[in-house]
Amino acid sequence: MKATVFCGASVDGFIARANGALDFLPDDAEPHGYDELIASVDTIVVGRNTFEIVLSFDAWPYGTKRVVVLGSRPLDLSAAIARGGVVEQMGGEPADIVARLGATGARHLYVDGGITIQRFLRAGLIDRLVVTRVPVLIGDGIPLFGSLPHDIRLRHLATRSYPSGLVQTEYEVPPRPTG
Amino acid sequence: MKATVFCGASVDGFIARANGALDFLPDDAEPHGYDELIASVDTIVVGRNTFEIVLSFDAWPYGTKRVVVLGSRPLDLSAAIARGGVVEQMGGEPADIVARLGATGARHLYVDGGITIQRFLRAGLIDRLVVTRVPVLIGDGIPLFGSLPHDIRLRHLATRSYPSGLVQTEYEVPPRPTG
Repeated sequence: MKATVFCGASVDGFIARANGALDFLPDDAEPHGYDELIASVDTIVVGRNTFEIVLSFDAWPYGTKRVVVLGSRPLDLSAAIARGGVVEQMGGEPADIVARLGATGARHLYVDGGITIQRFLRAGLIDRLVVTRVPVLIGDGIPLFGSLPHDIRLRHLATRSYPSGLVQTEYEVPPRPTG
Repeated sequence: MKATVFCGASVDGFIARANGALDFLPDDAEPHGYDELIASVDTIVVGRNTFEIVLSFDAWPYGTKRVVVLGSRPLDLSAAIARGGVVEQMGGEPADIVARLGATGARHLYVDGGITIQRFLRAGLIDRLVVTRVPVLIGDGIPLFGSLPHDIRLRHLATRSYPSGLVQTEYEVPPRPTG
């Protein structure tokens, strides 16, 4: 099982404004690998907040991939299903979720949403981190990263910059040394 | 007058740990432009906290450049002067400091330290922002960026990556449109 984070963030580290708005993302951004990422994963894991933001988009962005929305309280998935989404809800700790997804055929997860990314990073369950920096400082919002029980060393794989000013950096998150 | 920020930060946006420690910076990092930056500026503007961290270094890192330490309470500059530093103290708002520095011959400022960088950015007084990302998440510490009264759009100039995993991105901070 492999888990990838692929997300955009302002240079000061926010993935959305505090109210979920994404208006600081450039209108003219060129393709930068999202379609290829979606094609490479079999399961998308998102938190409740991201799910609600995504529902406000004009189009359902996850195609017919299996989408797992995390949350212990019941969620209304009907609007997503009506738009063609293949959506289910799951609760529990990240390790437990990964185990259950693995047991039902998942091989490559795309993990999205600030809180969910932070929970999976803290649990040591992310293998690859692709951050695309949007050339703006917004000062406040939903942060990509959060507190950690210990440092997480990253291995730089590649950095690409785009004419619109996006800078995408891809890191491997090596397994922690044990013992 | 021109003002440049040039600093290292973890991928999650911290320039130091909460206690000022810089132990997460790589030991084996290759030169990435600091000497060239220092050579290009005539005046270094730092906050009190950064000044104290810098005093704990083995060597005074600013050579014989004019260093202006910000702070309204009296500071003991003797240790820095004993190490060869050319150091003075100045208080006031960023715009006022820039005006006084300009009147005394400054043409290119290097602005350093989290709080100072944030104050100068908020005041619209930074022209160039060079951030070198160190491939690690540390979870907590002294943040590079802070709250802002409005978005600051950046213009991407260049991105360079280094074998040690450092990724350096250089942005121009365009003047805000007025009127």
